Formats: sequence, C-alpha cells, structure tokens
Amino acid sequence: MPTAEILSQGDEVVTGQIADTNAAWLSERLLEQGFDVVRHTTVGDRMADLVAVIGEIAARADVCLCTGGLGPTEDDLTAEAFARAFDAPVALDPVALEQIEERFRSMGRTMSPVNRKQALLPQGSVRLDNDWGTAPGFALVGGRCWFACMPGVPREMRQLWEHRVLPLLADRFELRPGRRVILRTIGVGESDLQTAMLGWSAEGVTVGYRTKLPENHLKLWFEATVPEDEVVARVREVLERAGRWTYTIEGLPEVADVGVDAGGGTLAAAVGRRLLARGETLALAESCTGGRIASACTAVAGASAWLLEGLVTYSNAAKVRLLGVSEADLEAHGAVSEVVARAMASGVRERSGATWGVGITGIAGPSGGTPDKPVGTVHVAVASPDRVLHRALRLPGDRDRIQSLAVASALELLRRQLHASN
Amino acid sequence: MPTAEILSQGDEVVTGQIADTNAAWLSERLLEQGFDVVRHTTVGDRMADLVAVIGEIAARADVCLCTGGLGPTEDDLTAEAFARAFDAPVALDPVALEQIEERFRSMGRTMSPVNRKQALLPQGSVRLDNDWGTAPGFALVGGRCWFACMPGVPREMRQLWEHRVLPLLADRFELRPGRRVILRTIGVGESDLQTAMLGWSAEGVTVGYRTKLPENHLKLWFEATVPEDEVVARVREVLERAGRWTYTIEGLPEVADVGVDAGGGTLAAAVGRRLLARGETLALAESCTGGRIASACTAVAGASAWLLEGLVTYSNAAKVRLLGVSEADLEAHGAVSEVVARAMASGVRERSGATWGVGITGIAGPSGGTPDKPVGTVHVAVASPDRVLHRALRLPGDRDRIQSLAVASALELLRRQLHASN
Repeated sequence: MPTAEILSQGDEVVTGQIADTNAAWLSERLLEQGFDVVRHTTVGDRMADLVAVIGEIAARADVCLCTGGLGPTEDDLTAEAFARAFDAPVALDPVALEQIEERFRSMGRTMSPVNRKQALLPQGSVRLDNDWGTAPGFALVGGRCWFACMPGVPREMRQLWEHRVLPLLADRFELRPGRRVILRTIGVGESDLQTAMLGWSAEGVTVGYRTKLPENHLKLWFEATVPEDEVVARVREVLERAGRWTYTIEGLPEVADVGVDAGGGTLAAAVGRRLLARGETLALAESCTGGRIASACTAVAGASAWLLEGLVTYSNAAKVRLLGVSEADLEAHGAVSEVVARAMASGVRERSGATWGVGITGIAGPSGGTPDKPVGTVHVAVASPDRVLHRALRLPGDRDRIQSLAVASALELLRRQLHASN
Repeated sequence: MPTAEILSQGDEVVTGQIADTNAAWLSERLLEQGFDVVRHTTVGDRMADLVAVIGEIAARADVCLCTGGLGPTEDDLTAEAFARAFDAPVALDPVALEQIEERFRSMGRTMSPVNRKQALLPQGSVRLDNDWGTAPGFALVGGRCWFACMPGVPREMRQLWEHRVLPLLADRFELRPGRRVILRTIGVGESDLQTAMLGWSAEGVTVGYRTKLPENHLKLWFEATVPEDEVVARVREVLERAGRWTYTIEGLPEVADVGVDAGGGTLAAAVGRRLLARGETLALAESCTGGRIASACTAVAGASAWLLEGLVTYSNAAKVRLLGVSEADLEAHGAVSEVVARAMASGVRERSGATWGVGITGIAGPSGGTPDKPVGTVHVAVASPDRVLHRALRLPGDRDRIQSLAVASALELLRRQLHASN
C-alpha cells in the first residue's frame, strides 16, 4: 500500500485556535482508497518550518495532502514554500488569475490587488481549479512524493478532494476503494459491543468502533474484493450479535434488506422514517430536555410531515395549562415523577391529535437534586392509542450529558414501540 | 521564547477515526505560559514511526507534550518507544503498580495481568501520578527536549497537565503566564470586525480572531507585564470599536465594569442574566427553529428561573390552538409572514404570563421555498409589555445553518431590547 501523510498549515491550527478537522476527514478518504496513512503534521505560518517539513515528507511518503496557506495575505506561504523546497519558482498562472477575477466579478466586486498573489503557482505544478472559492490549489511531485495543496476552508477542501485530487490520484496509483458499512447503535457501551463481537471475523473485513455519545458505531470495512452478496451475508452475521442495539445501518448495498432500517443518519431521522411509513404523527412534551427532543426531530428535513408540535413546559403552570397535568398530581408526586411524565405524554397526545405523545421530566442539574431524586433522575413516557409506557432513568454526567442521554432514551423508547406495535 | 511541540499517538487519530482535540487544547495552554508552539505531529501505533518522530523532536524542540499510547494493550507503545529512542530500557515502577492495583481495588475489581504493562516506565523518567485514571504518565529529557507523556483521554490529560506537567514546567522554564480576554460578538463578520480594529495596537497585547458560527470572538492576549488597570483601559478602547456587537466578555479582571456584560458564555446565558437582573421572564413560540431557541436557553443552568415555556408550533393547527394565531391571518399571509410572527410572539407572551415573548417562523429548507419566500426567509418578533418588534431576515446556508443563524438573530434581537428598554 502506498503511504500517505497530511500536512496542515496555519497559525490558527498550530496555536490551537481551531481544531484541525480537515486532517481526520482526509485520512478517512485516503484509507477508503487503500492508502496507508502514517503521519499528520501541523505547522504555523513560518517559511523555514514549512520548507523543512515539506522536505522531510518529500523523502518519506508517496502522497501528501496539504491544506491551508493559499489565501491572499502575507501569512499565506504555501506556494512560495513549495517553490523554495523544490527550487521551482512561482509564476503567474493567467488562467488562475482570470478565474479569481471572474469570481469577484460574479459577486459584483472588483478583485483587490492582494488577491493576485493567489494566482502565483510553483512552476511545473498542476493547477487544481477551485469552483467553490477564490484560491486555486495545485499538485506537484517533489522527491518521491506527490503533493496536492488545497484551501483550508473545509467546504472548499472537500470539493477539491472529490473533483480534482481524487481523479489525479486515480491516474497515478492503483486505488483499491472498499465499502464502509456502519451500524449505528444506542443503549450499549463500547466494551459490551466489542464483547458481543468477540470471535467474529471474516476475510477482507476490518471491524472498528467509534463512540459518538450517546451512540456507539460499529464500522465494517469491506475490501473491494468482497462481492456485494457476501457483504450482505456478513452484515447479517454481525446483526445477529449487535442487531438488538442497531437503529440504522449506513452504506449497505441498495438491494439489500436485512430487516433493519438502512436509511442512516440520526435516531430522530430513523424515528421519522418509521412514523412516515406508518402514516402516523408525533407530539412532544419536554421539561428537563428543554426542547432538545424537538430540535433533534426538526433537524431532520421534512419533519413537518410527522411532527405536529413540541411543548417545553418548564414551569408547573405550563404543565397544567398546556398539557392538563393535574395540580393534585404535581402536589402529591412532584413535577419529576412517573405520574407527571405519563400525564404529559397523554396530555400532549390528546390535545394535539397526534398518534404518539412523548413526555419527559427530570432533574438535569447542576442544582435541584434531592436525596430521593438526585440530579440525573428522569422519567420518560410514550403514549400510544393503546397505552402509556414509562421508564425511570438515573443518568450520569453533567447537565449537557444528562440532557443528551435523556433525548436518546426517549427517542429509543419511542422507536422500539414503533417497531413492536403494528 | 522556548519552542514547544505536540505529539499525538494512536491509530484512531492518524486514520481519522477521531479528531485530535487534545493538540489544540494543549497548544492554547502552552501559549498561555509563553511558549512558542511550532508543530503538531500525529503518528499511528507503529514502533518505527514513533521512535523516528521522537528522535526528530528531541533534536528540534525545547518542550514536547505527548498524548496517547499509555494503555494496557499491545498497541500502546509510548513507554517502549521512548526507551528505544533514548536507550533507557523500561523498568517496573513499584509505586505505579501499586497505584494501578489500588485503582482496580477501589472499583471492586482485580487488576488484570495486562495492566502490569502500564507500570513499566523508561529508566530515569519522572512518574506523573494519575489520580484520574489508570495509566500514569512520565516525563524525561531526551536530546535538547523535555518530554511529558500523558494519557489520550481528554479528561485525564487535562488533569495531568494542570497538576503534574505545569508545576514541572515551572521548575525548568521561566513561565510568562498572561491574561486572555475574549469579546464574544454576534451580527458581524470576521472581516468587518478586523476592519473595525484596523490601526489599533498596544504594547504587550496580541489581537486574534476566532469564528465560531454564528459568533465571532475577538481575543486579546495580554502579557504578564501588563497591569490590571491597563488591561481594563485597553478593553475599553477595543469596546469603542467593537462594543456594538459584543454581547459578553470573558476573562476581564473581576473588579472591572466596562458597561458590557462580563459573565461570559453563550448568547442565551447573557440574555438569561439580563432577564434575571430585571426580574423578568420569557416564553418562546418557535416554528422554523424547531426548539433550538428553547434548547439554547435550557442549556443554561438555572434557566427555569427565567424561562417559563417554549412552544414548537410546527403545524398551523398548533399555531391557532396554542398561540391564538388567527386562521384568517394564516390564510391571507401564510405561516411564514410578519403578521404570524407578531401574533406568535404576542400569543405566547399573553397566554404564558411571561414579560417577554419571542415568535419565529420561516423556511429552513431544503424544500418549502417559493420565489416570493425562498429558503432562508425568516420572520422574528419580540413582544414586550409595550410593543411588538419585528425583523425580516434572509438567511444563507443549509437547514442547520439557517436554523442556527435564526436562533442567534432572535436571541440578539431580544438582548438588544432588554438593554434598550428599562
């Protein structure tokens, strides 16, 4: 496998002003094409550092993807640094200049003289046209290494990768693109997921795990040699071990039906697809989660087809007026109680006319806990036409973590009901 | 200034499974102490790569902070790699072993034999006791460089930095800790913010910018030599230029009052403080933001003191039933209109009994746009006892971006009213 490195440039990255998400993203893309990613390096906007690291990489790697340093200011040194590292002076690329001027014209502005710098590319390099921003990238061979330099803006970088860099890579290297299948799970820890998978392996398949709290993702990497029907067969085997926690699968061949939602995306998206398929609707009554269940649902495009309304009833008065929770119950059991969660779910369901109602009440902290009901106590209820289901939870962590876990618990309880009932 | 580097180790980082947030965090801490951070390097779990990069850094930097590779598995190579790089074979540290065994005992478990590996440290290194996890770190001098190796788990790493690494650094180097003051702004782009600051400079102060959409942060770094009263005077000067966009300041000396909220944190937190100070309350009626304003408010601890309720009225029926929006207005103007936004704000204010009501309606996309009302059209209204203020917005971007900008616009409109009125 050819070796690859990532070089990120910019004071804002090396000083910690921004976290470098480009490097992780590019590493995944390179892996998908069969490269062996061995090193990431980040340097600031200093010529000597940059020239030195380019020289090191040129002697070491087969491919290097570089981001940043293509802007118009004095801090942007990439082209000049490559020119010095490989003794290939920069020259004005007239096509690049025309593209930059045209971009300013299309925005109704005149190009500032400083932007002329962005059309200076090392001699002998290949221009990477940037249709998504001002700065063109460039590619060149230095030492044993093929370098591709892209802007640091993630949106532009991703377009250049797909439309400019990947085709050039395919010309130079024999790519071995594989297939990534991801099982998104909820309600299980990473170590339990790993234990469930103990002893499973298959030719041409690599298993990985990724925690994205409160979810855990089980990643299957299939080499290009594994045929589609075998991919499906292997996924079925994995589902026998991890299927009970899997709410959706991403990357499965489109022909496959393994009996589990294969639409991908968030738990709310999976719930929404299931509601749509059933022709049913949802209404929410939230206290401790403060609108985060509604936000998760409305982050899904087209949610208005299945979400009727969400009420954030923080005060007791709101619970009584908007949901019909009885003052006697609030008095007798407290706002954080099974009785109130059930009344919230039923109340919002009945008043909204939705098929399903979710009610949630709890103590997200940091204050408000008592010995009986410590911070993290949460009651969630799901009301359907037939019945109201309840779960009492004791969630760990700080306010943000408790809210996040409560949202996932409520949506997962609903999702299971949507699959259990007809 | 002494030079510093960061070395992150782990296949999960170099392959892009996780983004390396440790490097950015440690860089900021080093800068705060006066170090010149020149490079970050990430390598996978391969002995040859690791030994090579340690050797390079030893010849180049004054300080290197390393994270990862201290776990019990075969992939965890850090101690052995340092041993090989500097010819200092690992040896069992009996105190480290006792600490690890004790940690397992305290969790009611027996230490597995594999964990014994975590007590093997390079000879001549200084153990960094880890009271927050299993793996102890270590520090040692190699070449011209002082290395400190910490676990990759961010929570543990941060504790080790503060309680173990920083004191040792202070013994070896003359630290020059400064003060970081951050002005958090909203409603202004980074280039306009920079333009407003053109020509401003002061001895011992470095100005930086950080975009955290939809906010822009203006960062002032004061060297340790700048006395507190001068810090305050400089911040006042900067506020004359950027004050009209600044909703809160972080890091100001506690004695200072510069006429701007100095509580820090999010826009919702600043709004909440202002409501609390006025003894007033808030109610929300959201359509296109789908609960995200409520979520932003309830992410603030103690929000129940000022947020009464939030209604996510996605359907027209919900707008009529819960907010008293008239069906005739919905018919005549459409749900996304000034009239309906005003009615939502007034309706939720009156029915909830809150001092202030916010109503927001719009088209977050990707579908639902028309030539008259394209995706990104948003109407926001703020109702007070006196009047209802309205703004029509045309927001750019995808669904997530439009929702995020709409949340900020609504909160900022409210914040300005809270400051304008008495």
